[in-house]
Amino acid sequence: MATSEHHVRHFQEELEQLKARLLEMGGIAEEQVRLSVKGLVDRDRALIGQVLSGDDPLNALHIEIDNRCFTLLALYQPMAADLRAIVAAVKINTDLERVGDLAINIGEAARQYAEHPPVKQLIDIPRMASIAQSMLRDALDAFVRKDIDLAQRVLNEDDALDALKSQIFRELLTYVLQDPATIEPALDLILISRHLERIGDHATNVAEDVIFMVTAKDVRHHAHEGDDETRPDG
Amino acid sequence: MATSEHHVRHFQEELEQLKARLLEMGGIAEEQVRLSVKGLVDRDRALIGQVLSGDDPLNALHIEIDNRCFTLLALYQPMAADLRAIVAAVKINTDLERVGDLAINIGEAARQYAEHPPVKQLIDIPRMASIAQSMLRDALDAFVRKDIDLAQRVLNEDDALDALKSQIFRELLTYVLQDPATIEPALDLILISRHLERIGDHATNVAEDVIFMVTAKDVRHHAHEGDDETRPDG
Repeated sequence: MATSEHHVRHFQEELEQLKARLLEMGGIAEEQVRLSVKGLVDRDRALIGQVLSGDDPLNALHIEIDNRCFTLLALYQPMAADLRAIVAAVKINTDLERVGDLAINIGEAARQYAEHPPVKQLIDIPRMASIAQSMLRDALDAFVRKDIDLAQRVLNEDDALDALKSQIFRELLTYVLQDPATIEPALDLILISRHLERIGDHATNVAEDVIFMVTAKDVRHHAHEGDDETRPDG
Repeated sequence: MATSEHHVRHFQEELEQLKARLLEMGGIAEEQVRLSVKGLVDRDRALIGQVLSGDDPLNALHIEIDNRCFTLLALYQPMAADLRAIVAAVKINTDLERVGDLAINIGEAARQYAEHPPVKQLIDIPRMASIAQSMLRDALDAFVRKDIDLAQRVLNEDDALDALKSQIFRELLTYVLQDPATIEPALDLILISRHLERIGDHATNVAEDVIFMVTAKDVRHHAHEGDDETRPDG
């Protein structure tokens, strides 16, 4: 098997480029989320329109990163930690693309919300957005730096999002019961809070992939300690 | 590189086993969806409870299939179509796990729905469920049989789900405006229709992966024709 020094160096360079592209994609996805919620809060239709038509760069990166992963697997046939890094990249790529889709969903709900008088001052939704964005950023930093402590902190933050989502739901329910005419905009906000919760779930997925990549331990579904490395002796 | 006949035959056997496990997982996920909607329609709390506590087999399969994919990549270093099949399996595995999660979400909403008097007779939601289930089944059949025509038909079915979801939303809105007390159960139904739509999205993901696996053409995001095979000459 071709494991010359040149070969190895080239693989590590390609892997660094792959990580840089994932970081870039994460930055764009996070910005889409930020703008969609800013468009909601400011009732800024132009900004919302920009978010709704802004997923081409993410879609292009999604395809490019998938191709990079394929090429790395095919050309270098990586083992153990390197193999886990590539498979993690394939999964993280999928998660980031979904985050972009969710930003679009938030934009669509924000556009509808702006058609009605505002139901209330928006405080908890921007708070959810800022937690979800920082979870995403931390999860990707953890991936690039192989930092499992940071990945673990991302997992711990998920409860805060859940609590805010439930609080938003209960509060909006009382508004609608007092004034049924608020049902449509209230539903938009409830759906937006769910989209933000799902963005947090994707950050959690990334964090779990990082922990698996670094430790070869599967922390999903409270799996049994998975000490057996994927390290064939062939 | 070890490409003896024995080696190749063993890989193909392992690949068949992997496909069989994915089919098994798809069957369980589909059954969870079916039971969650049956629990909703029949207001059967015992059945709903069974769904809510029934995701262990899916979670175990999720981890097992991921491990199989890793081992196949590491031991056999597959190329071209075989490599695409394994990467497709990694992604399909993720999609099926999410379908299982969505069945749980449906079960949770069904349990809440059963706490209130029924808003209406449920016709469109079971119809959505049956479309989503058949999309999922067809997508997995397409994967196992490498049938791109069937995969294409799955992609075409997505519009039917979207249309039903919008219809359910509009109808429930009129119910709530007539009787605000129906807000909570109406919301449960709206959320369930969105969960079912997302199950259809996962079936669509699987179908796109099948088309890529068979043709090496990327049909996501209306990508440019991707004729270049991942077939290194190294």
